Amino acid sequence: MTARGPALPRITDVAALAGVSTSTASKALNDTGQLRAETRERVRRAAEQLGFTPDSRGRALSSGRSYTVGLITTDSSGRFSIPIMLGAEDALSAGEMALVLCDTRDDPLRESHYLRSLVSRRVDGIIVTGRRTEPRAPIDVPIPVVYALSPSTDPADTSVVMDDRGGAAATARHLLSLGRRRIAHVTGPATHLSAVTRAAATVETAGDAIAGEPMHGEWSERWGRHAVDVLLRSTPDLDAISCGSDQIARGVCDRLRELGRAVPDDIAVTGYDNWTVMALASRPPLTTVDLQLEELGRRTAQLLLDTIAGTPHPGRLEIPTTLIPRESTLGT
Amino acid sequence: MTARGPALPRITDVAALAGVSTSTASKALNDTGQLRAETRERVRRAAEQLGFTPDSRGRALSSGRSYTVGLITTDSSGRFSIPIMLGAEDALSAGEMALVLCDTRDDPLRESHYLRSLVSRRVDGIIVTGRRTEPRAPIDVPIPVVYALSPSTDPADTSVVMDDRGGAAATARHLLSLGRRRIAHVTGPATHLSAVTRAAATVETAGDAIAGEPMHGEWSERWGRHAVDVLLRSTPDLDAISCGSDQIARGVCDRLRELGRAVPDDIAVTGYDNWTVMALASRPPLTTVDLQLEELGRRTAQLLLDTIAGTPHPGRLEIPTTLIPRESTLGT
Repeated sequence: MTARGPALPRITDVAALAGVSTSTASKALNDTGQLRAETRERVRRAAEQLGFTPDSRGRALSSGRSYTVGLITTDSSGRFSIPIMLGAEDALSAGEMALVLCDTRDDPLRESHYLRSLVSRRVDGIIVTGRRTEPRAPIDVPIPVVYALSPSTDPADTSVVMDDRGGAAATARHLLSLGRRRIAHVTGPATHLSAVTRAAATVETAGDAIAGEPMHGEWSERWGRHAVDVLLRSTPDLDAISCGSDQIARGVCDRLRELGRAVPDDIAVTGYDNWTVMALASRPPLTTVDLQLEELGRRTAQLLLDTIAGTPHPGRLEIPTTLIPRESTLGT
Repeated sequence: MTARGPALPRITDVAALAGVSTSTASKALNDTGQLRAETRERVRRAAEQLGFTPDSRGRALSSGRSYTVGLITTDSSGRFSIPIMLGAEDALSAGEMALVLCDTRDDPLRESHYLRSLVSRRVDGIIVTGRRTEPRAPIDVPIPVVYALSPSTDPADTSVVMDDRGGAAATARHLLSLGRRRIAHVTGPATHLSAVTRAAATVETAGDAIAGEPMHGEWSERWGRHAVDVLLRSTPDLDAISCGSDQIARGVCDRLRELGRAVPDDIAVTGYDNWTVMALASRPPLTTVDLQLEELGRRTAQLLLDTIAGTPHPGRLEIPTTLIPRESTLGT
């Protein structure tokens, strides 16, 4: 046992020090049974002196709960799942629940291994999250599950998602309110639901002010730089570029500066994600849409706690996104 | 119970379906006791039919172990702790251990709350990690602990750290091997151990080829851009800039390009971190040092498993960093 450091004090040690039986010590610490106040106090002092911590696994077994929630994620990069995880962990730890991390690395075998392991641990519930907004097949376990960011295809499940339509519409309205009337949209692959959703909402909201079809490419700065060259040839009177991500918007700003076009005086630029390492390092810093991922994680955990407590919330809950105006549209 | 979906099948259900007693069913599934092969087989089929999963908490209580490890991190951004966590989770899940996440947000009250909670859950061990390389005060718990990235101040503890001296020395040797003889070093705050360690190793390795004192500033692209202006005035014959982070190096490359200086033909540039979103988006992509954080997390978990099994490894283990040569020194 030396390798484990000093052994944990046990209830029997507390009882011995207090000079009472183990069952009396247990009653004193659990505030049950008929004991004299003086006895209860003596046991408490003994427990404190020994640094005794009750074994929460006993409580867990007798209540039929493990006070543990599993988080299954496919997003190894952590760009989206980390803030969600932190929000969830915040909400759960307030309720004394622990969060067990399971990273599937997009491998179905790893996912089913983890599901078996979580079920055998009798976790009270499971949060399933990913990096895409496309609906995913539900997992098949006999315990409460809530889906975050990537919703379940089953409408009877509980899913918490971001409001991509609202976020894209807010940037378009912001550009219109600044008097922009020739707005291009540059975004990620047409095979990504988030790109398509944002593009549709931008086109619909901008109305007559949209300049050309949405331009789909990769989620990269390089695509942003390249798109500027294409756009300035096709639409020389452009006065705004709304982008589907902060990475694309950063590339757009860099290329516009290199070509001597002032942002935002000549052309206003908006990003999407509020990924601060991109949005703030951009020259100028980007007006963008904050995804409120930590809030999304917090709400996911709260809905899971409700479901565990017997009050499920089937359906989809959309967490509103927030427009963050900065110099790329407002100027300095 | 409807909110929880169908109840989990119990060992009594398996016994009833197989037409045996509960104790016989338990023996059959645990491969203990004296049973006829036919009985054992009938119980197994019943368990399979019902989708029965043994409750691992029983195994945990009887073995005195919870098959759970806590991870305490102060790095909410997750830039450093996420890869460490994924590496640890990989090593632990191979041993059927679960990883419980505890984000302290640098708040001592949250940290002690989490420690009490982990002890009361009888986790088998704890990993402590942060975002700084400065040694930190050890935590006081009666269970095995291993420190990752931020080592314990107590040399009797087990700490796994990155080899910052080795990484910085490797970039300096790389620049020397390319014939560079006027090498400046631009890095983060002089109050950060990682900046000071990398600077000292760079100066020592570069020897006569070092140009001036290391320049300390913030960990940002802006500082990199600003440092270029200062350097080109003070040391116009500069032929290399070694940077303490990829963010700084990216700023350096941007400013050199804006001033018409070719990277690497006129001035070679190196980064540090291999933070791919910076290192690959840089123009040109950065030669940099990979911190091997996932490997660091994996080794941390392995040392913790050893300690739990009774074989502690007191002291510091340094995980070698890896030089990743790219266009910012090699050209295209």
